[in-house]
Amino acid sequence: MTDCFMLGSSAALAISLAASAVADQVDVTLSTIAGKNEGPARRWTLADQLTVPRLAAVAIAADGHSAAYVTRVVDSAINKTLSRLTLVDLQSGASRELLRVPWIDQLRRIPNSLAWSALIDLGEGVQLYRIEADGQISPIIVHPATARFGEVEGRLLPGYAHAPLSIGVRAYSWSPDGRWLFYITLDAASDERQILIDEKVSEQRGLRRRLGQATATLYLRAPNGKATLIARRPRSDVLSIASKGDVVWTKDEVRYPVMEIDPGGGERRVTMAWSFGKGRARKVASTRDYVYWQMKGPRGGQLASDGLGDTREIVEVAEDGRRHSYGRFPFSIGHGAAFGGGRSPDGHRTIVSLRALDDPRFGIGLVTNNGVRAIWGDGSLTKCDFTPSLNRGACLAESQTAPPSLALIDAVSGRVRRIASVSPAHDKIVPLKVTPRSWTNRYGHKVTGYIIWPRDYAKGRRYPAIVVNHGNDADQRFALQDNQWEYPVQTLAERGYVVLLINEASSRLNADLRAADQAWGLQGPTLPPERMRELLWLTGIASFEDAVSELAAEGIVDPARVGIAGYSRGSQLVNVAMTQSHFFRAASSGDGGFLEPAMAADMPDHYKAIFGGLPYDPKALPNYLALSPSLRAGKSCGAILQQVAAPHVASIDFYRALRRAGVPTQISLFPGESAASDETHVFHIPSNRMAAMQENIAWFDYWLLGKRDPASPFADRYAHWDEMRAARPARCR
Amino acid sequence: MTDCFMLGSSAALAISLAASAVADQVDVTLSTIAGKNEGPARRWTLADQLTVPRLAAVAIAADGHSAAYVTRVVDSAINKTLSRLTLVDLQSGASRELLRVPWIDQLRRIPNSLAWSALIDLGEGVQLYRIEADGQISPIIVHPATARFGEVEGRLLPGYAHAPLSIGVRAYSWSPDGRWLFYITLDAASDERQILIDEKVSEQRGLRRRLGQATATLYLRAPNGKATLIARRPRSDVLSIASKGDVVWTKDEVRYPVMEIDPGGGERRVTMAWSFGKGRARKVASTRDYVYWQMKGPRGGQLASDGLGDTREIVEVAEDGRRHSYGRFPFSIGHGAAFGGGRSPDGHRTIVSLRALDDPRFGIGLVTNNGVRAIWGDGSLTKCDFTPSLNRGACLAESQTAPPSLALIDAVSGRVRRIASVSPAHDKIVPLKVTPRSWTNRYGHKVTGYIIWPRDYAKGRRYPAIVVNHGNDADQRFALQDNQWEYPVQTLAERGYVVLLINEASSRLNADLRAADQAWGLQGPTLPPERMRELLWLTGIASFEDAVSELAAEGIVDPARVGIAGYSRGSQLVNVAMTQSHFFRAASSGDGGFLEPAMAADMPDHYKAIFGGLPYDPKALPNYLALSPSLRAGKSCGAILQQVAAPHVASIDFYRALRRAGVPTQISLFPGESAASDETHVFHIPSNRMAAMQENIAWFDYWLLGKRDPASPFADRYAHWDEMRAARPARCR
Repeated sequence: MTDCFMLGSSAALAISLAASAVADQVDVTLSTIAGKNEGPARRWTLADQLTVPRLAAVAIAADGHSAAYVTRVVDSAINKTLSRLTLVDLQSGASRELLRVPWIDQLRRIPNSLAWSALIDLGEGVQLYRIEADGQISPIIVHPATARFGEVEGRLLPGYAHAPLSIGVRAYSWSPDGRWLFYITLDAASDERQILIDEKVSEQRGLRRRLGQATATLYLRAPNGKATLIARRPRSDVLSIASKGDVVWTKDEVRYPVMEIDPGGGERRVTMAWSFGKGRARKVASTRDYVYWQMKGPRGGQLASDGLGDTREIVEVAEDGRRHSYGRFPFSIGHGAAFGGGRSPDGHRTIVSLRALDDPRFGIGLVTNNGVRAIWGDGSLTKCDFTPSLNRGACLAESQTAPPSLALIDAVSGRVRRIASVSPAHDKIVPLKVTPRSWTNRYGHKVTGYIIWPRDYAKGRRYPAIVVNHGNDADQRFALQDNQWEYPVQTLAERGYVVLLINEASSRLNADLRAADQAWGLQGPTLPPERMRELLWLTGIASFEDAVSELAAEGIVDPARVGIAGYSRGSQLVNVAMTQSHFFRAASSGDGGFLEPAMAADMPDHYKAIFGGLPYDPKALPNYLALSPSLRAGKSCGAILQQVAAPHVASIDFYRALRRAGVPTQISLFPGESAASDETHVFHIPSNRMAAMQENIAWFDYWLLGKRDPASPFADRYAHWDEMRAARPARCR
Repeated sequence: MTDCFMLGSSAALAISLAASAVADQVDVTLSTIAGKNEGPARRWTLADQLTVPRLAAVAIAADGHSAAYVTRVVDSAINKTLSRLTLVDLQSGASRELLRVPWIDQLRRIPNSLAWSALIDLGEGVQLYRIEADGQISPIIVHPATARFGEVEGRLLPGYAHAPLSIGVRAYSWSPDGRWLFYITLDAASDERQILIDEKVSEQRGLRRRLGQATATLYLRAPNGKATLIARRPRSDVLSIASKGDVVWTKDEVRYPVMEIDPGGGERRVTMAWSFGKGRARKVASTRDYVYWQMKGPRGGQLASDGLGDTREIVEVAEDGRRHSYGRFPFSIGHGAAFGGGRSPDGHRTIVSLRALDDPRFGIGLVTNNGVRAIWGDGSLTKCDFTPSLNRGACLAESQTAPPSLALIDAVSGRVRRIASVSPAHDKIVPLKVTPRSWTNRYGHKVTGYIIWPRDYAKGRRYPAIVVNHGNDADQRFALQDNQWEYPVQTLAERGYVVLLINEASSRLNADLRAADQAWGLQGPTLPPERMRELLWLTGIASFEDAVSELAAEGIVDPARVGIAGYSRGSQLVNVAMTQSHFFRAASSGDGGFLEPAMAADMPDHYKAIFGGLPYDPKALPNYLALSPSLRAGKSCGAILQQVAAPHVASIDFYRALRRAGVPTQISLFPGESAASDETHVFHIPSNRMAAMQENIAWFDYWLLGKRDPASPFADRYAHWDEMRAARPARCR
């Protein structure tokens, strides 16, 4: 079984720009796979979509003999997403579930022990626990859990695909010898009964949920067990409030980042160092720059990917600004979706995450004075952890077709060995055919992506198609919710759709795109609004349309039955696509609304950067009329479904505008756990996820194929959709 | 004591258009009043402002020997506004408090008994109880209280100056013989865990609190005690959901109104009649008209006030449209702020409420075939109830200077006799001098109002002044919260301010104003936006400025130290005043934001009527730039305080725009009972009311007089105000 990972559908993953050749390349049948997985072969179901585990973290024991990992898994019986901690023997591959609880985060090995530590919610809020190899669990730090994270009243920070959490311990870090412990606790301050003035009122503009107040307290526990308070930080210090325990230990100090707010409101990232000997902190560094990823290389400088185009230069920049180049590579380093990396104790070797530029997958880069050596698994090595020597690592591995597994990495030989399945149920599904592909659109911008083929694709027949997009998340990961949200891509392919997962043109590909990206992010000079429109939105629409047109020209896709779906950033592109052309007949837009004028007041600087002013500025208004979807509803024809996690003003404005224009549309709001909380932007409530997928199937089947399924939970909507279809304006018939 | 009401400051209430003569007219000194009130004479304090009772209801026994009344009173010790039920012997004037509980509403006598009934919250939600004359209380109808009213999650209707209420019984009515009982119960339907679609999402746009769902059930209890369900009504039937039990009993039927919604969304008010004999309902009438007040006259037609100008024609319109005129009078009939009226069993006499047009006060009109006879107390007869014969009535009486009392009305002789004080504590305050006055502004529009003089006004000295406005609520009522909100008018006068309570020009005064009013209300043809601006806002500002200028010309007011305050409708005028001219140096704007473009999407038809389009319509945008306060912040100079009951988007937009323009401003948000509820538009939480008044005093004292009070709870703001003052833009110095 250990070699399975190397086989299977891997041949399909080879980069191919000639898609017409790719279509016949893979010949995986139900019977061949079924034999390999030792169970009945089967096709994708919606239940499979729902139960794809989210890969959260992995930690390897110092001796490299075992690893623990955390996944988030759906428990349909209780309608919750839970966290699961699994221990794997790296020799035998034997796996054992140690815990299945509401929340587990920041899993780490405890140095100089065989135990693990993690932030866990066992019912008393999120606290720091020690987990023995036999699964015994005991508290390390327990603090009253008063601060709330998630889409809930009084929240400090919004949630990412989780139910509301009460937090006692926010973050922690062990010194390399395991004798010192840095940790942060949170204390909520209730302002319920206070009169709020000025900024505390202003910050609540249009907020669905009241913001909470809290302080973060930073402690250092010494080897003798005594904890010293080293700082108490205000709510504005998001580096402390949202800390993951990213501190740097030296022999004499622990260095930790804090956010300082200037009187003018500017943010400054300050690195503080607490001296063990002196018992006080000093300021080490301060920067206004947005720091995305920091890792030192073997020369002591900062590692980075640099340059534009199809390769990246990997460089190391010393403190004095001197730059060492490791050469050009077809990958970038330090991608946030993977793992942070690590440095050997002698400083001679650094491990970083890699992301391939074409057919994007994640791997490991070993950086030494000799250069950069890439280690790729067969697909992506998504989350990894290494022994202190960096010689051995454990990774969670996956690909578009390979369900997640745990892999052992030998960083010396570069060998990657599959150890254990993370989700045996998904191993039993016969993989769909998935081919990577890239396209160059009418603006000359290149995009990458994947074609997911209908299960029983027959050459010569034309298929309906759906484009699914979300930024650059179309990569070699397995049915990734962050990319495909509640668009059940694999089930749609089972049902006969060609599904295209298409990335946006990367801003690292050319200077124009990069300039637009920086202007939007307020990191560079402004561009004219028409250029912003083109480089940030219209080129994306062009990519989708041109990609579909290519497949239509190849006889694969029926251009009259094409839909589009995307959430968040993807919802922008969906909404713009539907209001700029009539290319797509149906759309599903997930929890978005950016670009609507109603949101301008909430992020005025970004809107000014895009539109050249705020919407009530007569000079800027024409730019809104040229881009904001709700102001262009009258140009639209295709049926637009919006699925939202909260009743966003912007989404409702778009809904109303479409309705007024007679364009078929629906907005569906998925509820939170209770009246006091909402579903999260990336859904976490299993019943919502299932319903949203069912609704998307019903929506596309109806509007693209004219199909009705009386068994669909949304079948009661058909009559209304019929009415909307009949009432479409003349220009749309 | 019974004659006190007739004396005192009543001389000051005479209508006078020559204010220069009025200033010396009244000579009430502390000593003369003190003697009359048999207690130590004293001046107004903020505690007095807070404890002015709100007059809710009165009911007279059928024999005319006693009356019960309900007031809402502040209990500072527990920081709540409570309802108080008081029984008064109409012979002796002896008063007895029967109940003091969270809520009492719909107080009525039970026909053919000596007992009363009311909707009361005794801790089980609002239910229907019977109250004996000795104060004994027993349930009549108790229904599980699941529906919520007030500024709270899941509310059916917003609250008016009350804490969130749970409602079991919503409304009731006794048949005239007391044998039948009509009542409505509410049942909330939770939609917390449902997926909401389309309009149920759209209606939540920008809502601070989630709307609840409920059904209303209408019952009729027969003399044998058996209750029959006569209708179950949906949430959209606001006539049932918000019913006050306004049904009409005939011998064979009970007639009740329901609201039907057309498929197109139009509302239709339908009168249903339930036959006792047949045990079923039939439709009696249906209208799309907005029905404000309905009362039949002695000829069987509908009574109404008609016409424009300084008098009103009182008419009775028969069902066939024939119109009988009772002549022209200097008052209108059927004013909602007073009482509904009544009709004698033989139909020969109708009692209506009157409102005088100049020096607006409330009285009683007896309408017979012979004409209309007016009965005036000395001030206003605000709430009244009559015996079935209509011969005797009990009224709650008050004026600008006379604290509330209970008065007995002899409808035959027209005599009004003060029976008992409603608030002895306020009787001890030496009344301030208050003179009614009217002004005609630069547009030729006439407005009424009152001057409240500084306690120790000395002729020849110029005083700072504050204009307080809220629609047409400046009338002969006592320190009315609905008019003066948390602007402590009387205390400001004690502190040396001339306070002007100024009404708006009534839309009944001329055809232009009326046309604008109707266009705004979507009841008449549209007017050009510049006319709407002038007739609905600019003329109001002109009234205030011209009134102050008159007093300045008379040497009374210092025009360099003039402020303005108003909530709700008043906040519109405050915000417009401050952004159209530099007349007012300081302002306090209460819980408003209408006219801001951010609210346009929530009431698009009204905004279109005002501005000629929505704000993103390039043709309409200039009209927003000409009127919307936040778009005119750069024209403003005076210091603007906004006090709000919730973090309204529109108020925050105005705050931010002023801040950006460098105009001194502050926004203060007053909290609700908990994170799950808000303060109401008219405040009900005593600590908020006290703080808001203190803040207004601190604000005006600072910005108009340059005064600081180290003891003010807002003293910690002075340093910030100093900064804002110093940072004012050059154009404002």
